[in-house]
Amino acid sequence: MSKSIHLALGIHNHQPVGNFPEIFEMAYKKSYLPFVELLMSYPQIKVSLHYTGPLWDYFFEKHPEFIEKLKALVQSGQVEMMSGAYYEPILPNIPDRDKIEQIQWMNDVIRNNTGYEPNGMWLAERVWEPHLCEPVAMAGMKYSVLDESHFKYSGVPGDGIFGYYISEDDGYPLNLFPISYDLRHLIPFHEPHETIDFLESRATESGERLATFADDGEKFGVWPGTYKTAYEDKWLERFFDLLLDNSSWIKLITFSEYMKKYPPVDKVYLTCASYFEMMEWALPANTAKAFKKIQKEIKQSGKWEEYEPFLQGGFWRNFLRKYPESNNMQKRALMVSNKVHCMKGKETGRARNELWKCQCNCAYWHGVFGGLYLPHLRSAVYHHLIKAESLADLNRSKGKPYANIDICDYDCDSYDEVMLSTDSLGLIFRPGKGGRLFELDYKPAAVNLMNTMTRREEAYHDEVREAVKKHGNHDEGLVSIHEMIRVKEADLDQHLVYDWYDRASLLDHFITPETTIEEFRKCSYSEQGDFIDQPFSMNARKKKGGLALELKRAGGVWQEEEFLPLTIEKTVTLQDDRSKIVVDYVLTNPGDKELDTIHGMEWNFSFLSGKEDGFKVEGQILENRKIEGISSIEYVKNFSLTDTLRKLRIEFEMSVPSRLWKFPLETVSQSESGFERTFQQCVLLLLNRVKLSPGKQLKFNMKITVNPLEDDDSSVSIVPETEVTEAKAA
Amino acid sequence: MSKSIHLALGIHNHQPVGNFPEIFEMAYKKSYLPFVELLMSYPQIKVSLHYTGPLWDYFFEKHPEFIEKLKALVQSGQVEMMSGAYYEPILPNIPDRDKIEQIQWMNDVIRNNTGYEPNGMWLAERVWEPHLCEPVAMAGMKYSVLDESHFKYSGVPGDGIFGYYISEDDGYPLNLFPISYDLRHLIPFHEPHETIDFLESRATESGERLATFADDGEKFGVWPGTYKTAYEDKWLERFFDLLLDNSSWIKLITFSEYMKKYPPVDKVYLTCASYFEMMEWALPANTAKAFKKIQKEIKQSGKWEEYEPFLQGGFWRNFLRKYPESNNMQKRALMVSNKVHCMKGKETGRARNELWKCQCNCAYWHGVFGGLYLPHLRSAVYHHLIKAESLADLNRSKGKPYANIDICDYDCDSYDEVMLSTDSLGLIFRPGKGGRLFELDYKPAAVNLMNTMTRREEAYHDEVREAVKKHGNHDEGLVSIHEMIRVKEADLDQHLVYDWYDRASLLDHFITPETTIEEFRKCSYSEQGDFIDQPFSMNARKKKGGLALELKRAGGVWQEEEFLPLTIEKTVTLQDDRSKIVVDYVLTNPGDKELDTIHGMEWNFSFLSGKEDGFKVEGQILENRKIEGISSIEYVKNFSLTDTLRKLRIEFEMSVPSRLWKFPLETVSQSESGFERTFQQCVLLLLNRVKLSPGKQLKFNMKITVNPLEDDDSSVSIVPETEVTEAKAA
Repeated sequence: MSKSIHLALGIHNHQPVGNFPEIFEMAYKKSYLPFVELLMSYPQIKVSLHYTGPLWDYFFEKHPEFIEKLKALVQSGQVEMMSGAYYEPILPNIPDRDKIEQIQWMNDVIRNNTGYEPNGMWLAERVWEPHLCEPVAMAGMKYSVLDESHFKYSGVPGDGIFGYYISEDDGYPLNLFPISYDLRHLIPFHEPHETIDFLESRATESGERLATFADDGEKFGVWPGTYKTAYEDKWLERFFDLLLDNSSWIKLITFSEYMKKYPPVDKVYLTCASYFEMMEWALPANTAKAFKKIQKEIKQSGKWEEYEPFLQGGFWRNFLRKYPESNNMQKRALMVSNKVHCMKGKETGRARNELWKCQCNCAYWHGVFGGLYLPHLRSAVYHHLIKAESLADLNRSKGKPYANIDICDYDCDSYDEVMLSTDSLGLIFRPGKGGRLFELDYKPAAVNLMNTMTRREEAYHDEVREAVKKHGNHDEGLVSIHEMIRVKEADLDQHLVYDWYDRASLLDHFITPETTIEEFRKCSYSEQGDFIDQPFSMNARKKKGGLALELKRAGGVWQEEEFLPLTIEKTVTLQDDRSKIVVDYVLTNPGDKELDTIHGMEWNFSFLSGKEDGFKVEGQILENRKIEGISSIEYVKNFSLTDTLRKLRIEFEMSVPSRLWKFPLETVSQSESGFERTFQQCVLLLLNRVKLSPGKQLKFNMKITVNPLEDDDSSVSIVPETEVTEAKAA
Repeated sequence: MSKSIHLALGIHNHQPVGNFPEIFEMAYKKSYLPFVELLMSYPQIKVSLHYTGPLWDYFFEKHPEFIEKLKALVQSGQVEMMSGAYYEPILPNIPDRDKIEQIQWMNDVIRNNTGYEPNGMWLAERVWEPHLCEPVAMAGMKYSVLDESHFKYSGVPGDGIFGYYISEDDGYPLNLFPISYDLRHLIPFHEPHETIDFLESRATESGERLATFADDGEKFGVWPGTYKTAYEDKWLERFFDLLLDNSSWIKLITFSEYMKKYPPVDKVYLTCASYFEMMEWALPANTAKAFKKIQKEIKQSGKWEEYEPFLQGGFWRNFLRKYPESNNMQKRALMVSNKVHCMKGKETGRARNELWKCQCNCAYWHGVFGGLYLPHLRSAVYHHLIKAESLADLNRSKGKPYANIDICDYDCDSYDEVMLSTDSLGLIFRPGKGGRLFELDYKPAAVNLMNTMTRREEAYHDEVREAVKKHGNHDEGLVSIHEMIRVKEADLDQHLVYDWYDRASLLDHFITPETTIEEFRKCSYSEQGDFIDQPFSMNARKKKGGLALELKRAGGVWQEEEFLPLTIEKTVTLQDDRSKIVVDYVLTNPGDKELDTIHGMEWNFSFLSGKEDGFKVEGQILENRKIEGISSIEYVKNFSLTDTLRKLRIEFEMSVPSRLWKFPLETVSQSESGFERTFQQCVLLLLNRVKLSPGKQLKFNMKITVNPLEDDDSSVSIVPETEVTEAKAA
């Protein structure tokens, strides 16, 4: 055979910060270890390997012997180690200095543990922006790998991907290898010889070409069914054998070796992109649906290949607009990065490590994996973020107790936020949008108790509805097993509820007496006031022993087809040295008509222990559905919630007996195994009748205390279960 | 009328650095002055005005009274002044520090001359990248304006453009106003009332919406036919009258005023984009053709509106790959920016001004205007670039004469460049690609004598061919007047010649004796050697009183179906204190066969005076076609070329009598008035028969001197014209 071709095999291995330890161990046993062991028995199979920081940390702690294996592979010249930003952040999602430092740290870890000096890096989710060349090159990187679709968008023809390209920003050069789409789909999902056939069809007389395969290592063992394929059915062995049988014309090479041997094909400039699907996921739901529709049309017309280079979805940063939850984590991490980079002294290293952990990409977006919808991943982000921030704050205050007020638009939505911080608590309010409280950090445990989600439409929700509908009325049990597996629950469509406002706390609702808890839960009630999304004026100040924030809005309430004026003043007070929050309310009727309405103060608490929230309450039970976690209780003054997993208790004390509605908020999202319902937070609504003559005021207050759970505390609810009724507001 | 709407009118006025003074004056008289005078007579018409740096410079010099008018308009509150990077660079095309400094300088000029403190800026060609928020916000800007297509790509629906959005990078916020596509096409190309009708259809009860018109001021007076429309037919007056008649519901407002009054519609993240056409132009020719084809299909199928938000061409930086000429200017400007920002002392300000001038966008790209294809615009870029560089070099050498060698890959193509610089000359070589010389700066006049173009296919060249073809054989004179106007010449298709290599100098061709000058000119000859694009080894060194670069390649030449070895050594020597270049050639036959071939040394000189290049030569004239500028002359030892416009003469001296071929290189490109042929450079080929026995060497040299033209020099060619013949290489 006179034709030949080079082949580079890049394997990227990753587990998110915050993933369960048993998942790390499972992935190690089913994928990371057997792959490397197989490599050791095939010394002629060259590969480029990438392990992200969470895996390195895990290897250091649990499997130092694995690192020895990597070192041996590197020393024999069989393996090139690829770098990357240590905790696998989406690069455009973090500041340049963190990009550079995280890559340099990975370089250090690789150098110190394997002796290899990395030349190139894996780019998390291949999320590219043209500005990246500069920080990546500044961190010492000479190359990265991207999808061939990135190149198509710049007019590189389909057969132009067999080699690498040089790009630059501001004169900082970076070589970019296009990953073959065909190889990603052949390996390991088709018989090994099909990859050989593909390579044969692309080989040339000059033999200069390079075919690049680079993909997730979890394809070999972790993804459903792949352990059987890769190891039990010996796909990998058969593939390696075939590569060796054809080694006369398939030349295995690492990316670094290829760069030394051949110049780039050409220069290239690549626009913001990732793999095709990611760009679709980043679009708003309605736009994504429209995009899916036209993709289908084009595929049906047989013109996909012709159209594809010009078809683009959104780009990664759109997730920050799509999900305010993602935006808040990203902007908080940015703020903490600024704080951490002002630190001096010995805690700096620890703070940076915590900062970089909170930048791990998985919780910041959502596609076919749970991602943002997984509470434990978001919780890990806040956990490390709060830890880093606490270290930085402590550093700045030189260890003295402090109480601080910051007012700025840190999340860049044009509305100023107010942040009240003490040693134990961090509260963030948005006066311009309902005077809401949307982050409540309990610092001793590094937990954001308001790590909530809002229920929003997703482009794939129609599929849930169709799956349920297609197979008949779910009450009749006609849903097929196949659909059941994907949909998981026969009545999942009933949970497709969308919130009309972002779920947060200290929200002021006004509802009619006829409104039921069920209607409120499903957002199918009628809001009578104008306080949820509207601006409150604010005044934040330090006071003796604490901090106070006064929020005030002269708004109104609908009453018998008239919009009557109503003023709400709510003052939040924080003690310096205690994890206690006091909220004082004053409702005033400034008008000349009698007001008679129902005020509902909404709170949202995110607990990792799910619906088992150790709910303790005294009062008259109107309704209590334990399985669904729905309660309506009258004459409530004291109650508490317990997060058994994080061992925290929140105690509430009302100055007036109120009606309490409590229900779990669940989202419906897509995961690798189908559509699923996820508990996100516990919603509390504290209802009070407001009957005010002209000029009159109603005053009440609420006290909230967060405490670690004593070991002998019972987390069992004392509330007895009741029949399902129609709990109304009054 | 209960519905209302806000309207912002943004007018952007620009002339490129290096444009002819008479164009500035024409545009002033036909557009800038009458527009502002009309505004003064309509004190209720609010507008936001932007004038780029070249215009400010022109006003300062020629029309200070115009600035007084602007000041009066600003002082009365009628006009908001918009800032921008001073000399209107494409922002992603220049370093962040230059972006910030150019914007700040424009802010200063506006503040000092009108008293207005600018809040927002015009973005040159609306070339956007998500990273821009940071430097733009750092320069003090709170807003910019972009096309509505930018927003569509992020999923903003069509009716979502009536307001503004907030974006950010790294927490630096920037407000972005979407320009209405409809308004851009209505104003002033449809009757004024159609704009009013459009606004009426978009007005709402709340009246909060903003319709944004922002476009080139040259639409009112400079663009073909628009002076008649705008002023003679009083389109503008009638439009302003209608706006005043409807002022009860059309509320004129500036961008800054609107931001104070209303919050943003939403957050937004925008991918790399510009207006739709720009993104198409940035694609490689073949890809652009494929894109045009599918656009046509989609429009025919009536699905344009549905598909458009997902259809994208390339992005601006693709021009740097498409045109190496643009890349060289950009990378040289980057290098000069680095040098200028290392300067100290009083010349720094002057150097920055020259640097910023060379960053003006117009010569760096090509769409429907000539742009890159216009020699006088590229020439202006090099002029200011060389001036800035000379100031920086002088600053670094502290005024002493210097001779410098730099070796680095400044243009980021993976091949090192070698730069030889003295006080009077700057030469740049690319050893890895034929040992070519591709920039020759004559510093006393700040001229790059090798500001050349390569003839490449453009997506619209098919249209030229079709236009000529459709109307029959051009020899028969059947081309319609309509097509003639657009095509300009009946045989323009004959000039669609594409070069197979980038045109540069010191290129080593080997051709057969049968090759004619015509074939060589049209790139339809057969190259016999392997020296044009292949690597030469190099050795650069300082020697007494000068600099030397030795280039060597052991290549080969085809001779009677055999590829025979041949080694070329070419040494370029530069004297410290003189603008003289000596090239010493040694051709060696290292093989065991007799070599008999023809060596042609190619040079390309770009003169602004076009084909009238004051060609003086002594020798035997084989062919001389004056009109076409094509000459073939035998036994040439001395000759000279004169650039009468820039008053420069280049003298050549050969050590051996050679045959000289000389012809003009012309491009065919699109401009606002149609397709046109443009003289770019004079190509010289110095031919010598190479007859070498095994082991033998041939040595010769060439001296090139650049001098200012003495006033009494004649620029008239002394070469008599001849009949058209077939001048062959031997």
